[in-house]
Amino acid sequence: MDRIIGTNAVYESLLSNRVKKLYLVDGFDNKRILGLANKNKISIVTFDRHEFYNKFDRNAQGCAADVIPFKTFSLNEVLLSCKEKKNPVVVILDELSDPHNLGAILRSSDVFDVSAVIYKNRNSVSLNDTVAKVSAGAINYVKCCEVTNLNQTIETLKKNQFWVIGLAGEATSDLKQIPDGVPLAIVVGSEGYGISRLVRENCDLMVKIPMSGHVSCLNASVSCAIVLYEIRTK
Amino acid sequence: MDRIIGTNAVYESLLSNRVKKLYLVDGFDNKRILGLANKNKISIVTFDRHEFYNKFDRNAQGCAADVIPFKTFSLNEVLLSCKEKKNPVVVILDELSDPHNLGAILRSSDVFDVSAVIYKNRNSVSLNDTVAKVSAGAINYVKCCEVTNLNQTIETLKKNQFWVIGLAGEATSDLKQIPDGVPLAIVVGSEGYGISRLVRENCDLMVKIPMSGHVSCLNASVSCAIVLYEIRTK
Repeated sequence: MDRIIGTNAVYESLLSNRVKKLYLVDGFDNKRILGLANKNKISIVTFDRHEFYNKFDRNAQGCAADVIPFKTFSLNEVLLSCKEKKNPVVVILDELSDPHNLGAILRSSDVFDVSAVIYKNRNSVSLNDTVAKVSAGAINYVKCCEVTNLNQTIETLKKNQFWVIGLAGEATSDLKQIPDGVPLAIVVGSEGYGISRLVRENCDLMVKIPMSGHVSCLNASVSCAIVLYEIRTK
Repeated sequence: MDRIIGTNAVYESLLSNRVKKLYLVDGFDNKRILGLANKNKISIVTFDRHEFYNKFDRNAQGCAADVIPFKTFSLNEVLLSCKEKKNPVVVILDELSDPHNLGAILRSSDVFDVSAVIYKNRNSVSLNDTVAKVSAGAINYVKCCEVTNLNQTIETLKKNQFWVIGLAGEATSDLKQIPDGVPLAIVVGSEGYGISRLVRENCDLMVKIPMSGHVSCLNASVSCAIVLYEIRTK
């Protein structure tokens, strides 16, 4: 069983029938959550404020839940679901480490109709309650796919007609040059080091977001959202 | 004196000559930071790992500093600096509460050449070390302007030829309809409630980012970045 916190994450998990047990602070009065929990006959445990925040993270907003573990998908399942879509988009994360970034990328991925977020099962962030909370429930809708080797994954995507687009500040092409009407895989690099050399060499096209200013780059989840917006509003 | 943490924030503060004292973990070997600190003769105190993380946040990356307090600017100073720019853009935050969002908005604002980020001095987030860290140093470059009343501020901006554009999921116009070649003020609502009624009534135009998917909206800092990208790449 997994543990999640926060009203958005709990509400979305209730909607998707993953909640097994609900933990609330005394006086919790979010009607959407209480309504759904009662309707679905979820078992509820309440605590006074002091006990609650001893037991749960201080960002829990008075509300936590035990839920059925997050489901992940195989690359084959992702490819199968992509075949049902016109111009599918997947996001590939190259050793991203910050759960806030993964959560934010899942949220934007749901909004911009991304079929899956793919990342390595080692040396990178994985699904946890911070990711779930920041994703505002999108973790229940966007397919998460953990793979062993990103370069093999990229080869498989290419064989399935995907164009692989890497994001890097030093690229010379801009986002307007991303091709239309083809399946796309968008590669986002890690917070500290960007995209690794070998993955970069396997990309069909490297693109950059035009930037002025003093700080060297945008946040990884912000960059990813801008690319998805550009693709979906062409 | 204010306290900041993290290598990006400390490095940027060193660059802008705000650092008075540097706190490092034993073995800290970031050459950019050590180089600048030595060059500028900054006093350095080192701690063993245990002491360091007792004293500073666990996200400090082995590095913290006392710095001259964050400078804020008056609305008059902001307007004066806008007069020097072609098509200036300012961002107005309507009771944003999350320091991660303010930090991320400052970072994107620096990247997309925003003249100032304006927010209320009460009932909203203000400048602190989380904001500074998430901003990756942009806090030293983007003008932060704390005001008492957002509606009066909007009136003043309008008198100075600014178009005031509000972001809301239920708007009917999209980002492509934001006018070109005029000074722009972009209003971003709070995380929970969006833009308040009165502020919304004072906007010249409400726009939305086209969204599909299940979660109800994008993160506030992500929305803000997408609007700034759209304005700057038209």
